[in-house]
Amino acid sequence: VSRWARFLAGDRQGFGVVRQGLLEEYEGDMFTGARPSGRQHALGNCRLLSPCRPRHIVALWNNFHALAAKLGKAAPAHPLFLLKAASSLAGPGDVIKRPGGYSGKIAFEGELAIVIGGRCAEVSADDAPRYIFGYTCINDVTAGEILNENPDFPQWTRSKSFPTFSCVGPWIETDLEFSRSNVVTRLDGVERQNYPLSDMVFAPNELVSRLSWDMELQPGDVIACGTSLGVGSMKDGATVEIEIDGIGCLKNTVSSH
Amino acid sequence: VSRWARFLAGDRQGFGVVRQGLLEEYEGDMFTGARPSGRQHALGNCRLLSPCRPRHIVALWNNFHALAAKLGKAAPAHPLFLLKAASSLAGPGDVIKRPGGYSGKIAFEGELAIVIGGRCAEVSADDAPRYIFGYTCINDVTAGEILNENPDFPQWTRSKSFPTFSCVGPWIETDLEFSRSNVVTRLDGVERQNYPLSDMVFAPNELVSRLSWDMELQPGDVIACGTSLGVGSMKDGATVEIEIDGIGCLKNTVSSH
Repeated sequence: VSRWARFLAGDRQGFGVVRQGLLEEYEGDMFTGARPSGRQHALGNCRLLSPCRPRHIVALWNNFHALAAKLGKAAPAHPLFLLKAASSLAGPGDVIKRPGGYSGKIAFEGELAIVIGGRCAEVSADDAPRYIFGYTCINDVTAGEILNENPDFPQWTRSKSFPTFSCVGPWIETDLEFSRSNVVTRLDGVERQNYPLSDMVFAPNELVSRLSWDMELQPGDVIACGTSLGVGSMKDGATVEIEIDGIGCLKNTVSSH
Repeated sequence: VSRWARFLAGDRQGFGVVRQGLLEEYEGDMFTGARPSGRQHALGNCRLLSPCRPRHIVALWNNFHALAAKLGKAAPAHPLFLLKAASSLAGPGDVIKRPGGYSGKIAFEGELAIVIGGRCAEVSADDAPRYIFGYTCINDVTAGEILNENPDFPQWTRSKSFPTFSCVGPWIETDLEFSRSNVVTRLDGVERQNYPLSDMVFAPNELVSRLSWDMELQPGDVIACGTSLGVGSMKDGATVEIEIDGIGCLKNTVSSH
Protein backbone atom coordinates (compact mmCIF):
# COMPACT_ATOMS: atom_id res chain seq x y z
CA VAL A 1 0.00 0.00 0.00
CA SER A 2 1.38 3.39 -1.02
CA ARG A 3 -0.20 6.75 -0.34
CA TRP A 4 1.27 9.58 -2.40
CA ALA A 5 0.70 13.14 -1.28
CA ARG A 6 1.82 16.64 -2.14
CA PHE A 7 2.52 18.85 0.84
CA LEU A 8 3.71 22.12 2.25
CA ALA A 9 5.94 21.92 5.34
CA GLY A 10 6.84 25.45 6.38
CA ASP A 11 8.01 27.06 3.15
CA ARG A 12 8.94 23.74 1.58
CA GLN A 13 6.64 22.28 -1.07
CA GLY A 14 7.19 18.69 -2.02
CA PHE A 15 5.70 15.26 -2.48
CA GLY A 16 6.17 11.87 -0.95
CA VAL A 17 4.67 8.82 0.68
CA VAL A 18 2.49 8.93 3.80
CA ARG A 19 3.38 6.11 6.20
CA GLN A 20 2.69 5.76 9.92
CA GLY A 21 2.26 9.43 10.73
CA LEU A 22 5.26 10.43 8.62
CA LEU A 23 5.61 12.00 5.21
CA GLU A 24 8.65 10.42 3.56
CA GLU A 25 9.74 12.98 1.00
CA TYR A 26 10.59 11.98 -2.58
CA GLU A 27 12.19 13.94 -5.39
CA GLY A 28 11.90 13.73 -9.17
CA ASP A 29 8.50 13.21 -10.72
CA MET A 30 5.70 11.32 -8.99
CA PHE A 31 4.64 9.62 -12.21
CA THR A 32 7.78 9.16 -14.28
CA GLY A 33 10.47 8.53 -11.70
CA ALA A 34 10.52 9.34 -7.99
CA ARG A 35 13.29 8.50 -5.52
CA PRO A 36 13.45 9.08 -1.74
CA SER A 37 15.11 12.38 -0.81
CA GLY A 38 16.03 11.02 2.61
CA ARG A 39 13.97 13.72 4.35
CA GLN A 40 10.99 12.97 6.57
CA HIS A 41 8.32 15.26 7.96
CA ALA A 42 5.83 14.61 10.74
CA LEU A 43 2.46 14.43 9.00
CA GLY A 44 1.07 16.80 11.63
CA ASN A 45 3.51 19.48 10.49
CA CYS A 46 2.46 19.19 6.84
CA ARG A 47 -0.37 20.91 5.06
CA LEU A 48 -1.57 18.50 2.37
CA LEU A 49 -2.13 19.92 -1.13
CA SER A 50 -4.14 18.38 -3.95
CA PRO A 51 -2.11 15.19 -4.56
CA CYS A 52 -1.72 15.89 -8.29
CA ARG A 53 -2.11 18.80 -10.66
CA PRO A 54 -4.23 17.45 -13.53
CA ARG A 55 -4.23 18.91 -17.00
CA HIS A 56 -7.64 17.28 -17.52
CA ILE A 57 -10.37 16.78 -14.92
CA VAL A 58 -12.85 14.41 -16.56
CA ALA A 59 -16.24 14.11 -14.83
CA LEU A 60 -18.68 11.28 -15.50
CA TRP A 61 -22.44 11.61 -15.57
CA ASN A 62 -24.85 8.73 -14.91
CA ASN A 63 -22.24 6.10 -14.01
CA PHE A 64 -24.12 4.32 -11.19
CA HIS A 65 -27.02 1.95 -11.69
CA ALA A 66 -28.87 3.15 -8.55
CA LEU A 67 -28.80 6.78 -9.68
CA ALA A 68 -29.78 5.88 -13.26
CA ALA A 69 -32.78 3.98 -11.87
CA LYS A 70 -33.78 6.93 -9.69
CA LEU A 71 -33.46 9.35 -12.62
CA GLY A 72 -35.40 6.93 -14.82
CA LYS A 73 -32.55 6.87 -17.35
CA ALA A 74 -31.03 3.91 -19.10
CA ALA A 75 -27.48 3.00 -18.11
CA PRO A 76 -25.30 4.52 -20.87
CA ALA A 77 -23.67 2.37 -23.55
CA HIS A 78 -20.52 4.52 -23.43
CA PRO A 79 -19.19 6.76 -20.63
CA LEU A 80 -20.89 10.19 -20.66
CA PHE A 81 -18.45 12.87 -19.63
CA LEU A 82 -17.58 16.52 -19.51
CA LEU A 83 -14.38 18.38 -18.67
CA LYS A 84 -14.02 20.63 -15.62
CA ALA A 85 -11.52 23.50 -15.81
CA ALA A 86 -8.10 22.47 -14.49
CA SER A 87 -8.16 25.80 -12.64
CA SER A 88 -11.06 24.55 -10.49
CA LEU A 89 -8.65 22.35 -8.49
CA ALA A 90 -8.55 22.54 -4.70
CA GLY A 91 -6.87 20.42 -2.04
CA PRO A 92 -7.69 18.94 1.36
CA GLY A 93 -8.79 21.62 3.81
CA ASP A 94 -9.15 24.30 1.14
CA VAL A 95 -12.17 26.56 1.35
CA ILE A 96 -14.83 26.03 -1.34
CA LYS A 97 -15.48 29.58 -2.54
CA ARG A 98 -18.93 30.79 -3.47
CA PRO A 99 -18.60 32.16 -7.04
CA GLY A 100 -18.76 35.94 -7.29
CA GLY A 101 -22.21 36.97 -8.46
CA TYR A 102 -23.85 33.57 -7.78
CA SER A 103 -26.28 33.33 -4.88
CA GLY A 104 -27.87 29.95 -5.76
CA LYS A 105 -27.43 26.47 -4.38
CA ILE A 106 -24.03 24.77 -4.34
CA ALA A 107 -24.12 20.97 -4.35
CA PHE A 108 -21.63 18.39 -3.10
CA GLU A 109 -21.04 15.23 -5.12
CA GLY A 110 -18.82 12.69 -3.38
CA GLU A 111 -16.97 10.49 -5.87
CA LEU A 112 -14.09 8.12 -6.46
CA ALA A 113 -11.35 9.68 -8.59
CA ILE A 114 -8.89 7.77 -10.76
CA VAL A 115 -5.42 9.33 -11.18
CA ILE A 116 -3.68 8.57 -14.47
CA GLY A 117 0.01 7.65 -14.34
CA GLY A 118 1.10 7.74 -17.98
CA ARG A 119 0.21 9.05 -21.40
CA CYS A 120 -2.73 6.92 -22.41
CA ALA A 121 -4.36 6.68 -25.86
CA GLU A 122 -6.42 3.89 -27.39
CA VAL A 123 -5.65 1.26 -24.74
CA SER A 124 -7.63 -1.88 -23.98
CA ALA A 125 -9.34 -2.58 -20.65
CA ASP A 126 -6.74 -5.32 -20.08
CA ASP A 127 -3.92 -2.80 -20.51
CA ALA A 128 -5.65 -0.01 -18.55
CA PRO A 129 -4.18 -0.95 -15.11
CA ARG A 130 -0.73 0.05 -16.39
CA TYR A 131 -2.04 3.62 -16.83
CA ILE A 132 -3.87 3.91 -13.52
CA PHE A 133 -1.51 5.35 -10.92
CA GLY A 134 -4.04 5.18 -8.11
CA TYR A 135 -7.24 6.45 -6.55
CA THR A 136 -8.33 9.40 -4.46
CA CYS A 137 -11.51 11.18 -3.32
CA ILE A 138 -13.11 14.08 -5.17
CA ASN A 139 -15.87 16.49 -4.30
CA ASP A 140 -17.29 17.41 -7.71
CA VAL A 141 -18.83 20.69 -6.54
CA THR A 142 -21.64 22.05 -8.72
CA ALA A 143 -23.51 25.35 -8.95
CA GLY A 144 -26.77 23.54 -9.53
CA GLU A 145 -28.92 26.44 -10.68
CA ILE A 146 -26.64 27.20 -13.62
CA LEU A 147 -26.87 23.75 -15.21
CA ASN A 148 -30.26 24.23 -16.85
CA GLU A 149 -30.37 28.02 -16.96
CA ASN A 150 -30.39 28.00 -20.78
CA PRO A 151 -33.03 25.78 -22.44
CA ASP A 152 -30.88 25.02 -25.50
CA PHE A 153 -27.59 24.02 -23.89
CA PRO A 154 -26.99 22.25 -20.57
CA GLN A 155 -24.11 24.10 -18.91
CA TRP A 156 -22.23 21.17 -17.38
CA THR A 157 -18.78 22.71 -17.68
CA ARG A 158 -19.80 26.16 -16.48
CA SER A 159 -21.66 24.89 -13.41
CA LYS A 160 -18.65 22.79 -12.32
CA SER A 161 -15.58 24.86 -13.27
CA PHE A 162 -15.53 27.71 -10.75
CA PRO A 163 -12.29 28.02 -8.74
CA THR A 164 -12.17 25.47 -5.85
CA PHE A 165 -15.03 23.39 -7.35
CA SER A 166 -12.83 20.28 -7.76
CA CYS A 167 -11.64 19.27 -4.29
CA VAL A 168 -9.19 16.35 -4.58
CA GLY A 169 -7.39 14.34 -1.89
CA PRO A 170 -6.22 13.65 0.71
CA TRP A 171 -3.65 11.49 -1.14
CA ILE A 172 -3.42 8.93 -3.94
CA GLU A 173 -3.80 5.33 -2.84
CA THR A 174 -2.09 3.03 -5.32
CA ASP A 175 -3.69 -0.19 -4.07
CA LEU A 176 -7.45 -0.12 -3.80
CA GLU A 177 -9.93 -2.94 -4.19
CA PHE A 178 -12.61 -0.48 -5.18
CA SER A 179 -15.37 -3.09 -5.41
CA ARG A 180 -15.24 -3.58 -1.64
CA SER A 181 -15.43 0.15 -0.86
CA ASN A 182 -18.25 2.64 -0.37
CA VAL A 183 -18.23 6.38 -0.90
CA VAL A 184 -19.52 8.13 2.22
CA THR A 185 -20.31 11.85 2.24
CA ARG A 186 -20.98 13.69 5.49
CA LEU A 187 -22.35 17.23 5.68
CA ASP A 188 -21.66 18.92 9.01
CA GLY A 189 -21.09 15.43 10.42
CA VAL A 190 -24.37 13.94 9.11
CA GLU A 191 -24.12 11.11 6.58
CA ARG A 192 -25.70 12.14 3.27
CA GLN A 193 -24.25 9.63 0.80
CA ASN A 194 -23.19 6.03 1.32
CA TYR A 195 -23.02 4.02 -1.89
CA PRO A 196 -21.01 1.03 -3.06
CA LEU A 197 -18.43 1.43 -5.83
CA SER A 198 -19.42 -2.05 -7.01
CA ASP A 199 -22.51 -0.37 -8.51
CA MET A 200 -20.51 1.52 -11.18
CA VAL A 201 -21.71 1.15 -14.78
CA PHE A 202 -18.15 1.55 -16.10
CA ALA A 203 -15.58 0.38 -13.57
CA PRO A 204 -12.07 1.91 -13.66
CA ASN A 205 -10.32 -0.38 -16.18
CA GLU A 206 -13.17 -0.26 -18.66
CA LEU A 207 -13.64 3.46 -18.05
CA VAL A 208 -10.00 4.38 -18.66
CA SER A 209 -9.94 2.22 -21.77
CA ARG A 210 -13.09 3.78 -23.25
CA LEU A 211 -12.00 7.34 -22.42
CA SER A 212 -8.58 6.72 -23.95
CA TRP A 213 -10.25 6.24 -27.34
CA ASP A 214 -11.99 9.62 -26.92
CA MET A 215 -9.11 11.76 -25.71
CA GLU A 216 -5.46 11.33 -24.82
CA LEU A 217 -5.09 11.11 -21.05
CA GLN A 218 -1.90 12.40 -19.44
CA PRO A 219 0.03 11.79 -16.18
CA GLY A 220 -1.76 13.39 -13.25
CA ASP A 221 -5.11 13.57 -15.02
CA VAL A 222 -8.12 12.95 -12.79
CA ILE A 223 -11.26 11.05 -13.72
CA ALA A 224 -14.20 11.68 -11.38
CA CYS A 225 -16.16 8.43 -11.66
CA GLY A 226 -19.59 10.02 -11.15
CA THR A 227 -21.77 10.16 -8.09
CA SER A 228 -24.79 8.15 -6.92
CA LEU A 229 -27.74 8.75 -4.60
CA GLY A 230 -27.84 11.44 -1.91
CA VAL A 231 -26.46 14.55 -3.59
CA GLY A 232 -27.56 17.74 -1.85
CA SER A 233 -26.65 21.34 -1.32
CA MET A 234 -24.20 22.90 1.11
CA LYS A 235 -24.95 26.06 3.05
CA ASP A 236 -22.29 28.74 3.39
CA GLY A 237 -19.97 27.73 6.22
CA ALA A 238 -20.84 24.02 5.98
CA THR A 239 -18.18 21.33 6.30
CA VAL A 240 -18.24 18.42 3.87
CA GLU A 241 -16.27 15.19 4.13
CA ILE A 242 -15.87 12.58 1.41
CA GLU A 243 -14.56 9.30 2.79
CA ILE A 244 -13.71 6.13 0.90
CA ASP A 245 -12.59 3.16 2.95
CA GLY A 246 -9.16 2.07 1.76
CA ILE A 247 -8.29 5.65 0.76
CA GLY A 248 -9.10 8.20 3.46
CA CYS A 249 -11.14 11.32 4.12
CA LEU A 250 -11.23 14.59 2.17
CA LYS A 251 -12.59 17.52 4.19
CA ASN A 252 -13.47 21.00 2.96
CA THR A 253 -15.52 23.93 4.21
CA VAL A 254 -17.71 26.26 2.18
CA SER A 255 -16.80 29.93 2.49
CA SER A 256 -19.06 31.78 4.88
CA HIS A 257 -19.26 35.21 3.24
CA VAL B 1 1.65 44.60 -35.39
CA SER B 2 3.29 41.56 -33.78
CA ARG B 3 2.88 37.97 -34.85
CA TRP B 4 4.07 35.47 -32.27
CA ALA B 5 4.81 31.94 -33.39
CA ARG B 6 6.27 28.73 -32.00
CA PHE B 7 8.54 26.91 -34.40
CA LEU B 8 10.88 24.05 -35.10
CA ALA B 9 14.01 24.91 -37.13
CA GLY B 10 16.00 21.72 -37.59
CA ASP B 11 16.22 20.28 -34.08
CA ARG B 12 15.70 23.66 -32.45
CA GLN B 13 12.31 24.43 -30.93
CA GLY B 14 11.58 28.00 -29.99
CA PHE B 15 9.32 30.97 -30.28
CA GLY B 16 9.54 34.43 -31.68
CA VAL B 17 8.10 37.13 -33.89
CA VAL B 18 7.35 36.67 -37.57
CA ARG B 19 8.41 39.73 -39.60
CA GLN B 20 9.11 40.09 -43.32
CA GLY B 21 9.86 36.46 -44.04
CA LEU B 22 11.99 36.06 -40.93
CA LEU B 23 11.39 34.48 -37.58
CA GLU B 24 13.14 36.61 -34.97
CA GLU B 25 13.74 34.25 -32.07
CA TYR B 26 12.92 35.27 -28.50
CA GLU B 27 13.74 33.60 -25.20
CA GLY B 28 12.02 33.56 -21.83
CA ASP B 29 8.26 33.23 -21.71
CA MET B 30 5.98 34.51 -24.45
CA PHE B 31 3.43 35.78 -21.95
CA THR B 32 5.36 36.84 -18.87
CA GLY B 33 8.61 38.18 -20.28
CA ALA B 34 10.23 37.58 -23.65
CA ARG B 35 13.45 39.13 -24.93
CA PRO B 36 15.15 38.78 -28.33
CA SER B 37 17.75 36.00 -28.41
CA GLY B 38 19.56 37.68 -31.29
CA ARG B 39 18.97 34.66 -33.58
CA GLN B 40 16.97 34.81 -36.76
CA HIS B 41 15.61 32.03 -38.95
CA ALA B 42 14.27 32.23 -42.48
CA LEU B 43 10.55 31.56 -42.15
CA GLY B 44 10.82 29.06 -45.01
CA ASN B 45 13.21 26.95 -42.91
CA CYS B 46 10.82 26.81 -39.95
CA ARG B 47 8.00 24.42 -39.28
CA LEU B 48 5.36 26.36 -37.36
CA LEU B 49 3.86 24.70 -34.27
CA SER B 50 0.62 25.61 -32.49
CA PRO B 51 1.50 29.15 -31.31
CA CYS B 52 0.61 28.40 -27.68
CA ARG B 53 0.02 25.35 -25.49
CA PRO B 54 -3.25 26.05 -23.71
CA ARG B 55 -4.24 24.47 -20.42
CA HIS B 56 -7.85 25.27 -21.29
CA ILE B 57 -9.44 25.26 -24.75
CA VAL B 58 -12.83 26.91 -24.27
CA ALA B 59 -15.29 26.50 -27.16
CA LEU B 60 -18.38 28.67 -27.58
CA TRP B 61 -21.71 27.49 -28.92
CA ASN B 62 -24.29 29.77 -30.56
CA ASN B 63 -22.22 32.97 -30.53
CA PHE B 64 -23.24 34.38 -33.93
CA HIS B 65 -26.60 36.01 -34.65
CA ALA B 66 -26.78 34.57 -38.19
CA LEU B 67 -26.31 30.99 -36.96
CA ALA B 68 -28.76 31.48 -34.06
CA ALA B 69 -31.37 32.71 -36.56
CA LYS B 70 -30.77 29.72 -38.83
CA LEU B 71 -31.04 27.30 -35.88
CA GLY B 72 -34.18 29.10 -34.68
CA LYS B 73 -32.55 29.69 -31.28
CA ALA B 74 -32.51 32.85 -29.20
CA ALA B 75 -29.17 34.59 -28.83
CA PRO B 76 -27.90 33.50 -25.40
CA ALA B 77 -27.93 35.83 -22.41
CA HIS B 78 -24.56 34.48 -21.24
CA PRO B 79 -21.79 32.71 -23.21
CA LEU B 80 -22.56 29.00 -23.69
CA PHE B 81 -19.36 27.00 -23.61
CA LEU B 82 -17.71 23.65 -23.21
CA LEU B 83 -14.09 22.61 -22.71
CA LYS B 84 -12.11 20.64 -25.29
CA ALA B 85 -9.28 18.41 -24.05
CA ALA B 86 -5.94 20.25 -24.03
CA SER B 87 -4.54 17.08 -25.62
CA SER B 88 -6.63 17.73 -28.75
CA LEU B 89 -4.22 20.51 -29.79
CA ALA B 90 -2.66 20.52 -33.28
CA GLY B 91 -0.63 23.10 -35.18
CA PRO B 92 -0.43 24.50 -38.71
CA GLY B 93 0.14 21.75 -41.26
CA ASP B 94 -0.60 18.94 -38.83
CA VAL B 95 -2.71 16.06 -40.04
CA ILE B 96 -6.23 15.85 -38.58
CA LYS B 97 -6.46 12.20 -37.54
CA ARG B 98 -9.64 10.19 -37.92
CA PRO B 99 -10.37 8.76 -34.43
CA GLY B 100 -9.75 5.04 -34.09
CA GLY B 101 -13.06 3.21 -34.24
CA TYR B 102 -15.04 6.18 -35.64
CA SER B 103 -16.18 5.99 -39.26
CA GLY B 104 -18.71 8.85 -39.20
CA LYS B 105 -18.59 12.40 -40.48
CA ILE B 106 -15.92 14.83 -39.31
CA ALA B 107 -16.87 18.51 -39.49
CA PHE B 108 -14.76 21.65 -39.84
CA GLU B 109 -15.69 24.76 -37.88
CA GLY B 110 -13.64 27.82 -38.79
CA GLU B 111 -13.41 30.26 -35.88
CA LEU B 112 -11.59 33.20 -34.38
CA ALA B 113 -9.57 32.22 -31.29
CA ILE B 114 -8.62 34.54 -28.44
CA VAL B 115 -5.29 33.79 -26.70
CA ILE B 116 -5.16 34.78 -23.03
CA GLY B 117 -2.00 36.53 -21.80
CA GLY B 118 -2.36 36.53 -18.03
CA ARG B 119 -4.16 34.89 -15.13
CA CYS B 120 -7.67 36.26 -15.38
CA ALA B 121 -10.46 35.95 -12.82
CA GLU B 122 -13.54 38.13 -12.30
CA VAL B 123 -12.44 40.97 -14.58
CA SER B 124 -14.66 43.62 -16.17
CA ALA B 125 -15.09 44.06 -19.91
CA ASP B 126 -13.18 47.34 -19.59
CA ASP B 127 -10.22 45.52 -18.03
CA ALA B 128 -10.39 42.51 -20.36
CA PRO B 129 -8.02 43.91 -23.04
CA ARG B 130 -5.15 43.66 -20.54
CA TYR B 131 -5.69 39.86 -20.44
CA ILE B 132 -6.02 39.32 -24.19
CA PHE B 133 -2.59 38.57 -25.64
CA GLY B 134 -3.84 38.28 -29.21
CA TYR B 135 -5.85 36.38 -31.79
CA THR B 136 -5.36 33.37 -34.00
CA CYS B 137 -7.39 30.96 -36.16
CA ILE B 138 -8.86 27.69 -34.92
CA ASN B 139 -10.47 24.76 -36.65
CA ASP B 140 -12.82 23.39 -33.98
CA VAL B 141 -13.00 19.89 -35.51
CA THR B 142 -16.04 17.83 -34.48
CA ALA B 143 -17.05 14.17 -34.83
CA GLY B 144 -20.63 15.18 -35.59
CA GLU B 145 -22.31 11.81 -35.19
CA ILE B 146 -21.19 11.46 -31.59
CA LEU B 147 -22.78 14.69 -30.35
CA ASN B 148 -26.33 13.37 -30.10
CA GLU B 149 -25.61 9.64 -29.85
CA ASN B 150 -27.06 9.49 -26.33
CA PRO B 151 -30.56 10.97 -25.87
CA ASP B 152 -29.94 12.06 -22.27
CA PHE B 153 -26.62 13.85 -22.56
CA PRO B 154 -25.25 15.87 -25.50
CA GLN B 155 -21.62 14.80 -25.88
CA TRP B 156 -20.02 18.16 -26.72
CA THR B 157 -16.69 17.44 -25.09
CA ARG B 158 -16.36 13.90 -26.42
CA SER B 159 -17.16 14.85 -30.02
CA LYS B 160 -14.55 17.63 -29.99
CA SER B 161 -11.66 16.27 -27.88
CA PHE B 162 -10.02 13.63 -30.06
CA PRO B 163 -6.28 14.16 -30.68
CA THR B 164 -5.66 16.81 -33.43
CA PHE B 165 -9.28 18.10 -33.20
CA SER B 166 -8.17 21.60 -32.14
CA CYS B 167 -6.02 23.02 -34.94
CA VAL B 168 -4.60 26.40 -33.90
CA GLY B 169 -2.43 28.89 -35.79
CA PRO B 170 -0.55 29.93 -37.78
CA TRP B 171 0.54 32.56 -35.21
CA ILE B 172 -0.87 34.96 -32.64
CA GLU B 173 -1.61 38.42 -33.96
CA THR B 174 -1.53 40.93 -31.13
CA ASP B 175 -3.25 43.75 -33.04
CA LEU B 176 -6.51 42.83 -34.71
CA GLU B 177 -9.52 45.00 -35.40
CA PHE B 178 -11.76 41.96 -35.38
CA SER B 179 -14.90 43.87 -36.31
CA ARG B 180 -13.49 44.52 -39.77
CA SER B 181 -12.49 40.90 -40.39
CA ASN B 182 -14.29 37.87 -41.81
CA VAL B 183 -13.62 34.20 -41.14
CA VAL B 184 -13.20 32.35 -44.44
CA THR B 185 -13.05 28.54 -44.57
CA ARG B 186 -12.02 26.74 -47.74
CA LEU B 187 -12.39 23.01 -48.29
CA ASP B 188 -10.12 21.69 -51.05
CA GLY B 189 -9.88 25.27 -52.29
CA VAL B 190 -13.66 25.91 -52.39
CA GLU B 191 -15.03 28.60 -50.07
CA ARG B 192 -17.46 27.11 -47.56
CA GLN B 193 -17.65 29.75 -44.83
CA ASN B 194 -17.32 33.52 -45.07
CA TYR B 195 -18.84 35.36 -42.14
CA PRO B 196 -18.15 38.68 -40.42
CA LEU B 197 -16.78 38.76 -36.88
CA SER B 198 -18.90 41.86 -36.31
CA ASP B 199 -21.87 39.44 -36.01
CA MET B 200 -20.65 37.94 -32.70
CA VAL B 201 -23.15 37.86 -29.83
CA PHE B 202 -20.37 38.22 -27.25
CA ALA B 203 -17.37 40.07 -28.69
CA PRO B 204 -13.90 39.39 -27.21
CA ASN B 205 -13.79 41.89 -24.34
CA GLU B 206 -17.26 41.01 -23.10
CA LEU B 207 -16.60 37.31 -23.67
CA VAL B 208 -13.34 37.23 -21.70
CA SER B 209 -14.95 39.21 -18.89
CA ARG B 210 -17.98 36.90 -18.64
CA LEU B 211 -15.89 33.72 -18.84
CA SER B 212 -13.52 35.02 -16.17
CA TRP B 213 -16.42 34.95 -13.68
CA ASP B 214 -17.05 31.30 -14.56
CA MET B 215 -13.52 29.92 -14.52
CA GLU B 216 -10.01 31.23 -14.00
CA LEU B 217 -8.30 31.69 -17.35
CA GLN B 218 -4.54 31.24 -17.59
CA PRO B 219 -1.74 32.44 -19.90
CA GLY B 220 -1.87 30.60 -23.22
CA ASP B 221 -5.50 29.56 -22.83
CA VAL B 222 -7.49 29.59 -26.06
CA ILE B 223 -11.11 30.68 -26.45
CA ALA B 224 -12.71 29.49 -29.69
CA CYS B 225 -15.33 32.19 -30.31
CA GLY B 226 -17.86 29.90 -32.01
CA THR B 227 -18.64 29.39 -35.65
CA SER B 228 -21.36 30.70 -37.95
CA LEU B 229 -23.01 29.56 -41.18
CA GLY B 230 -21.47 27.05 -43.58
CA VAL B 231 -20.16 24.25 -41.36
CA GLY B 232 -19.77 20.98 -43.25
CA SER B 233 -17.93 17.70 -43.24
CA MET B 234 -14.45 16.87 -44.50
CA LYS B 235 -13.67 13.71 -46.46
CA ASP B 236 -10.55 11.73 -45.62
CA GLY B 237 -7.62 13.36 -47.42
CA ALA B 238 -9.34 16.76 -47.70
CA THR B 239 -7.45 20.01 -47.12
CA VAL B 240 -9.08 22.72 -45.03
CA GLU B 241 -7.95 26.31 -44.67
CA ILE B 242 -9.21 28.83 -42.10
CA GLU B 243 -8.25 32.37 -43.06
CA ILE B 244 -8.93 35.57 -41.13
CA ASP B 245 -7.83 38.81 -42.73
CA GLY B 246 -5.45 40.58 -40.39
CA ILE B 247 -4.22 37.27 -38.98
CA GLY B 248 -3.36 34.72 -41.68
CA CYS B 249 -4.22 31.26 -42.90
CA LEU B 250 -4.30 27.96 -40.98
CA LYS B 251 -4.08 24.91 -43.24
CA ASN B 252 -4.55 21.24 -42.27
CA THR B 253 -5.26 17.99 -44.07
CA VAL B 254 -7.46 15.13 -42.90
CA SER B 255 -5.67 11.78 -42.68
CA SER B 256 -6.37 9.56 -45.66
CA HIS B 257 -6.35 6.12 -44.02
